[in-house]
Amino acid sequence: MLNTLIVGASGYAGAELVNYLYRHPHMNITALTVSAQSNDAGKLISDLHPQLKGLVDMPLQAMSDIREFTAGVDVVFLATAHEVSHELAPQFLAAGCVVIDLSGAFRVNDAGFYPRYYGFTHQHPELLEQAVYGLAEWQSEKLKETRLISVPGCYPTASQLALKPLIDAGLLDLNQWPVINATSGVSGAGRKAAISNSFCEVSLQPYGIFNHRHQPEIAVHLGTSVIFTPHLGNFPRGILATITCRLNKGVTQQQVADAFNAAYQHKPLVRLYDKGVPALKNVVGLPFCDIGFAVQDEHLIVVATEDNLLKGAAAQAVQCLNIRFGFAETQSLI
Amino acid sequence: MLNTLIVGASGYAGAELVNYLYRHPHMNITALTVSAQSNDAGKLISDLHPQLKGLVDMPLQAMSDIREFTAGVDVVFLATAHEVSHELAPQFLAAGCVVIDLSGAFRVNDAGFYPRYYGFTHQHPELLEQAVYGLAEWQSEKLKETRLISVPGCYPTASQLALKPLIDAGLLDLNQWPVINATSGVSGAGRKAAISNSFCEVSLQPYGIFNHRHQPEIAVHLGTSVIFTPHLGNFPRGILATITCRLNKGVTQQQVADAFNAAYQHKPLVRLYDKGVPALKNVVGLPFCDIGFAVQDEHLIVVATEDNLLKGAAAQAVQCLNIRFGFAETQSLI
Amino acid sequence: MLNTLIVGASGYAGAELVNYLYRHPHMNITALTVSAQSNDAGKLISDLHPQLKGLVDMPLQAMSDIREFTAGVDVVFLATAHEVSHELAPQFLAAGCVVIDLSGAFRVNDAGFYPRYYGFTHQHPELLEQAVYGLAEWQSEKLKETRLISVPGCYPTASQLALKPLIDAGLLDLNQWPVINATSGVSGAGRKAAISNSFCEVSLQPYGIFNHRHQPEIAVHLGTSVIFTPHLGNFPRGILATITCRLNKGVTQQQVADAFNAAYQHKPLVRLYDKGVPALKNVVGLPFCDIGFAVQDEHLIVVATEDNLLKGAAAQAVQCLNIRFGFAETQSLI
Amino acid sequence: MLNTLIVGASGYAGAELVNYLYRHPHMNITALTVSAQSNDAGKLISDLHPQLKGLVDMPLQAMSDIREFTAGVDVVFLATAHEVSHELAPQFLAAGCVVIDLSGAFRVNDAGFYPRYYGFTHQHPELLEQAVYGLAEWQSEKLKETRLISVPGCYPTASQLALKPLIDAGLLDLNQWPVINATSGVSGAGRKAAISNSFCEVSLQPYGIFNHRHQPEIAVHLGTSVIFTPHLGNFPRGILATITCRLNKGVTQQQVADAFNAAYQHKPLVRLYDKGVPALKNVVGLPFCDIGFAVQDEHLIVVATEDNLLKGAAAQAVQCLNIRFGFAETQSLI
Repeated sequence: MLNTLIVGASGYAGAELVNYLYRHPHMNITALTVSAQSNDAGKLISDLHPQLKGLVDMPLQAMSDIREFTAGVDVVFLATAHEVSHELAPQFLAAGCVVIDLSGAFRVNDAGFYPRYYGFTHQHPELLEQAVYGLAEWQSEKLKETRLISVPGCYPTASQLALKPLIDAGLLDLNQWPVINATSGVSGAGRKAAISNSFCEVSLQPYGIFNHRHQPEIAVHLGTSVIFTPHLGNFPRGILATITCRLNKGVTQQQVADAFNAAYQHKPLVRLYDKGVPALKNVVGLPFCDIGFAVQDEHLIVVATEDNLLKGAAAQAVQCLNIRFGFAETQSLI
Repeated sequence: MLNTLIVGASGYAGAELVNYLYRHPHMNITALTVSAQSNDAGKLISDLHPQLKGLVDMPLQAMSDIREFTAGVDVVFLATAHEVSHELAPQFLAAGCVVIDLSGAFRVNDAGFYPRYYGFTHQHPELLEQAVYGLAEWQSEKLKETRLISVPGCYPTASQLALKPLIDAGLLDLNQWPVINATSGVSGAGRKAAISNSFCEVSLQPYGIFNHRHQPEIAVHLGTSVIFTPHLGNFPRGILATITCRLNKGVTQQQVADAFNAAYQHKPLVRLYDKGVPALKNVVGLPFCDIGFAVQDEHLIVVATEDNLLKGAAAQAVQCLNIRFGFAETQSLI
Repeated sequence: MLNTLIVGASGYAGAELVNYLYRHPHMNITALTVSAQSNDAGKLISDLHPQLKGLVDMPLQAMSDIREFTAGVDVVFLATAHEVSHELAPQFLAAGCVVIDLSGAFRVNDAGFYPRYYGFTHQHPELLEQAVYGLAEWQSEKLKETRLISVPGCYPTASQLALKPLIDAGLLDLNQWPVINATSGVSGAGRKAAISNSFCEVSLQPYGIFNHRHQPEIAVHLGTSVIFTPHLGNFPRGILATITCRLNKGVTQQQVADAFNAAYQHKPLVRLYDKGVPALKNVVGLPFCDIGFAVQDEHLIVVATEDNLLKGAAAQAVQCLNIRFGFAETQSLI
Repeated sequence: MLNTLIVGASGYAGAELVNYLYRHPHMNITALTVSAQSNDAGKLISDLHPQLKGLVDMPLQAMSDIREFTAGVDVVFLATAHEVSHELAPQFLAAGCVVIDLSGAFRVNDAGFYPRYYGFTHQHPELLEQAVYGLAEWQSEKLKETRLISVPGCYPTASQLALKPLIDAGLLDLNQWPVINATSGVSGAGRKAAISNSFCEVSLQPYGIFNHRHQPEIAVHLGTSVIFTPHLGNFPRGILATITCRLNKGVTQQQVADAFNAAYQHKPLVRLYDKGVPALKNVVGLPFCDIGFAVQDEHLIVVATEDNLLKGAAAQAVQCLNIRFGFAETQSLI
């Protein structure tokens, strides 16, 4: 039995972490925290997320000093803002905890990335070296030994799971950059008051064209350039990515299928479609990334879908936990 | 041609007013204003409400002193907060304008009502005397002579249009209070950043049970008590009210139909259903209130639906304008 | 380990049954069937309900003779049309199975009820006698001994859970009939092609006013008349019922709270609200019925919400199973 | 005053035509028809589309022989299935009517196109020669003289309005095919009972990958290949297309802006965005196509949005009518 602390539990991803971890037979939640300034301090998690009522009625505790919360804690989940994770992760590591960070603070091992895309200068280059990027299907060996896991962003998870097998197998003509069009539910913007999130304002629309922080995250980890255009969709949760690529000359549909099968046939949280492509609803509320594709001549379209809060955040974090500590990979997830 | 000023044009009802009035052949919009503190000052109305792009690209001007905006203005629409209308209406009246107020500041001629339901003490009892409550189908004579029109609330419009013909005809047994269950779109809460309005939080739910300010507004103008339970619905606009009443002994379905027909057969913005009851979508984007009903023994259920921003706000305001100045009642509305 | 057959597994409630039962440690699904005429015969359940892909990929088998499916089967779930359950239940009982029927075929022990509300004459009055109405919180003793469980309708579950403690405690003045206004998600209409279910046509609207079959179901089991007005809501799943009642003279808010607590404080699938009332989203995807209320003078408003496919169908069916066979009441449900 | 007949008025585009044409000061609707087999024959248009109640309560008449409906008719709108338009257009032309066809029956002057994409062999090659493709902003001269107008498809309208100015100006490197990702509301599938359209089944998903009939329509009229991937979105109406292209070396953002301005600055139904890109809601219920774009190096993303039933169907049909007969281009549209 491991003790775990969930920092930033009040948000949407935080609540999903709570939901998974309270069911986990090997985990014991010691506390849920929010920042000392938060209006939510003192409330129950189930006041903010009433689906948890009667299941997890723990309070959200204001945390101003981590030392009040680290005693006996084995694993800390950080479902916090990027800057906050950047500040807290070293402290929790120093306190002897394994840290699983859901923010972007340790995803890219490139100091120049953070000022440009996150607005702060990274102070912990040695942690950028040590952090394991938790794209779980591709990092199972490294995950077993690390003390700092950086869970990928929601869009990067779907995008990389779709593209990595093809790139690694050398099937794509990368002179023509893959075009990733992805649409995310509104929960991707977090639980906060903002006109842009308000019910009457949300409407299908691209945003962050050419400058979304997930574009370099995808490109760095895939090792190739991509055009990534995120869209806000009029639904609460889920991401659907439609990816248009060019195949190398002579590459067949079978080779594409083989590459996906080789990568994922033994991976329980990626579901491949023999025919057709997934719809968003297939994965909402579930920990899977579903992938389908179609080929015509040298053109390939891959469709990947996931719940942005689950495989794109909390479920992948728990999957990383499971791998890290040798639990069944899908423990508490399905 | 009348000159009109729209105060508080940045909100949802304000934008609908703009949309009606720029099409109105007898109206000339002189300016659109917002409060001097608003972040929206200086933006175009079409920046906030892009459906107006290319149609009305006027700026939202910061108004700190009304005298900068009253020159030559015949009619002022106040789509402002209750307290703001309460403060501004006397000033515009003093400047010689006809005032059409969409807030609750002058709806109930009872000084005790405002501290309890709106949180301020009313300073202008003489205006409460003078104001005409603009439930347009029922006030056409009074509207023609007033200089201060108080447009009813959204729920009260639907509720009163449904009940008033029956009460006036003496068909209801009012010992049993009519039960009004109504569901409104999220735009009813206004254009603002709030967790409660955010896309992922909105979900069908009652609110303001037994203490919503529209309950006394309805009761006072109908002259009878009602139980009014508003709900937030998961749609942007529209109100549907389902009203359960008890008929006096022996009252027939035909008598109910006759009462509605007598009241509304010559009223172009109330549409009566011979059979069945309306759905919300029948009226969204339209200036109508649709009414249907069913009778079984002494039980009567009336269903009334309207667009909360239109017949429940902007369209009724323009309807009042049209009646006040002798234009066709539906001018620019249909 | 019990063997179970799910008949009518292709619908929305059927798929939810499959989802619960494949996780149930004491249950083994032997087969999923659809009618011999169904176009879905031969498809996988996960073709129709892709959320089950990789979890339950069993085929939907055409069933023309039940004997092909009864060997070794202990429990049969009927998620079938009313007429079909009416025909099949006696056959499965004769074959020695315990039958848990989700249709309306055995809910009301009154032969006159079926021709009027379901369009067929009941042929099995002896089964109407034997059937236990599976409103689980209220029938735990009887459920343990029956071989035919009739799972209540979705609206009746929420309505009765809200009203029964109050009526049994004698708190309501029933001279004034309780007014039940309830709104259901579209899945309540079943998985079928129909203009009325189509995306562009669905819009908040009452239906079945004064003649919905759930009205007598509620009234018979509560032993009192009610006015029940169902509405179609623009969401896939969930029911929210707002119930307006009159309290007997002198009844206090505390007495109401006490009645609910006495009924449900040890019932894990009913969640009571100390303050406020539930929203629909609190229960979507969950097996709970959530109940809150407000009192003013002699007026009481109770709000009950549930997932129509879960506590209103599949979860309650599994809850009945659990009670029937002595499993933990919430086994596989939470 | 011209007399007009609307054939296939019962569908979503048909109802929008009715809505525009009854307001049109130069048009008189003589009749609304549906096929002789339709269940809707004899109903009022406002029974099917209640938003028209009180505005247009004309009956939907069964049409088995066009001669019963052509007397005195100047213009016929065909809002019918492709095969039906293919059959009826020649008959109405022979009867002396101007025909404005909203189907795909006359959009592509290539006999091989119809068997492959529409499933029938075209019988009227001479009409394919004569038909003017009504992409209104680009065909105003030809429209003035034709008797057969073929209104473009919904996706092709947005796609071509976005790409044609750039291609005509030689700004695009077409060796890399433009990638058109577009999402349409459910009304694009028509008013019909189908599981795929049902409320609980609709979910964001690509369909018709590499083989949608609008791909060749776009490619033929643009004169270049494109990759077109349509998606079904979870909203009733509207299309948003995100188009990724490669610019020729050295082409600047200003050149792109200039090309759009040159094409559309005097076109009232195309709205260009100086900065940013449009959201779907900007155009829903309106006759516009809104276009914005972003450039980075040689990459260009154009976003075009329209209401699929309006600029993508009925509004463009009326725009063609207006141009054809010399009315103001936006008559009755804004």
